Amino acid sequence: MNNFHLKNYIQERKQMIDEHLDSLLPEPGGPSGKVVEAMRYSLSAGGKRVRPILMMAACEAVGGDFNKIMPAACAMECVHTYSLIHDDLPAMDDDDLRRGKPTCHKVFGEAIAILAGDALLTYAFELMTHPELLRAVNGDLVNEAISIFAKAAGVSGMVGGQTADILFEGKDVDGDTLAYIHGHKTGALIRASVEMGALLGGGKEAQVESLSRFGTALGLAFQVVDDLLDVIGDEKKLGKPVGSDERNKKATYPALFGIEETKKRAQDLKNNALDALVSFGAEADPLRAIAIYVVERDR
Amino acid sequence: MNNFHLKNYIQERKQMIDEHLDSLLPEPGGPSGKVVEAMRYSLSAGGKRVRPILMMAACEAVGGDFNKIMPAACAMECVHTYSLIHDDLPAMDDDDLRRGKPTCHKVFGEAIAILAGDALLTYAFELMTHPELLRAVNGDLVNEAISIFAKAAGVSGMVGGQTADILFEGKDVDGDTLAYIHGHKTGALIRASVEMGALLGGGKEAQVESLSRFGTALGLAFQVVDDLLDVIGDEKKLGKPVGSDERNKKATYPALFGIEETKKRAQDLKNNALDALVSFGAEADPLRAIAIYVVERDR
Repeated sequence: MNNFHLKNYIQERKQMIDEHLDSLLPEPGGPSGKVVEAMRYSLSAGGKRVRPILMMAACEAVGGDFNKIMPAACAMECVHTYSLIHDDLPAMDDDDLRRGKPTCHKVFGEAIAILAGDALLTYAFELMTHPELLRAVNGDLVNEAISIFAKAAGVSGMVGGQTADILFEGKDVDGDTLAYIHGHKTGALIRASVEMGALLGGGKEAQVESLSRFGTALGLAFQVVDDLLDVIGDEKKLGKPVGSDERNKKATYPALFGIEETKKRAQDLKNNALDALVSFGAEADPLRAIAIYVVERDR
Repeated sequence: MNNFHLKNYIQERKQMIDEHLDSLLPEPGGPSGKVVEAMRYSLSAGGKRVRPILMMAACEAVGGDFNKIMPAACAMECVHTYSLIHDDLPAMDDDDLRRGKPTCHKVFGEAIAILAGDALLTYAFELMTHPELLRAVNGDLVNEAISIFAKAAGVSGMVGGQTADILFEGKDVDGDTLAYIHGHKTGALIRASVEMGALLGGGKEAQVESLSRFGTALGLAFQVVDDLLDVIGDEKKLGKPVGSDERNKKATYPALFGIEETKKRAQDLKNNALDALVSFGAEADPLRAIAIYVVERDR
């Protein structure tokens, strides 16, 4: 694992995903071309591709060939992107910028942004039944992956977390509610990415279970560290102002438990994630490196 | 067919769908309960259940047992309902009332309405992989049905039609564009309902093809007659004011081709729909009765 270069690995994977997204998405043009432009605009707005990279890495960890599941990896990025477009809308978080670029509704207007989000979410399920994927993977496994995906994205997952986040804004939030919001809003899709990769890669039940535990810990770690960086991070490295959670009266781990306790929590989650991988060999090194990076990062 | 009572038939089917929707949807409660309330509010706001009834009827027409595909029928109604919630939003058609009741965003606010739409769309795909459906139908057929569903709902179907409808509002629209808007905005889901019912019911390829032609004709007929009733309909029977298309400068068949030509077009489409069913026996009588009703209705 010492010789594993995470930066190169992520760069390579990101490029593969970007190429597949470009070739798998519909082309603009025709009476509905505007919404395709909006879909492509937001998809190419500098996302880090964390979720599809995790799906590909989990597929490899169980000995699968990630090249065969690229439509599913792209589907995951479509759902993540739709959630950002809708979260940024004036009726939701009302954000004008996302990763330094104008948000979808700022460029295309609210109506097209709502439709582009709807279209990306729907397209994800079109991609989950893409002929390429159905040729490579048993139909029952694809059904199971779709079920995991829909549950993680919907009201019992991400949408549920976003709902709670909005309803509790500015209110006092206890540890349980905070865990619910984070576990659902961010955690559900991250765990689903890992589970789907393991499942579609042909993982055995015990492997999928271990990777599911890995995904749960990683998803929480991701959010805990995000909260932490918003308090103790370096604005220059982060490329965005810190302290926004406090200004927006968002419930966070540091606000609820203090900085030291939150740091400890992040380390514990990293260890939980790594523990879930003990039965895996070197094929899981990318997942290990990602877990360490997520917690040790300074941006 | 003379003894077929469409009114009773529709009433019975509607009740079955309503009961299944109630039992298959999540229960309100918990931190995200508000969005479940909003989903249930819009689902129970008096929809006619046209699409799920068509899916069940198509399933029967090929000799299938519609009881086995109820999760798919409910999934179709979820997608239809999500599309109404999002279409009614201030950034889209900005409607305060839908079937005489306040629209979702009027009751729950815009943020929850957007999320309720997202949740219903996502839940549709959760229902498409419901254990009940997967036990009854071969997994490959389910994947095929999901593919048809996602294409019909997404940017190459309903979302594409809605996009064009918004972009062309108030502009001169030719016959081709009008056919695109209607064929996609309303037609795609109606055709998909029939195709999915036939496919999940175990229909042979030729049967699915015939029913697909039926669905295409029916979907267009539905919209042509809607346009017509907005010009020559009786406000009392319709339960809504007529002339709204002209006031909203919406492109319609009567505006483009005149009333007589539009009436003729509706009759032609009815005949096309009935022609597509010639190879079917009495099992297709409900579909025949629906096609006749759609064109002859006065509301």
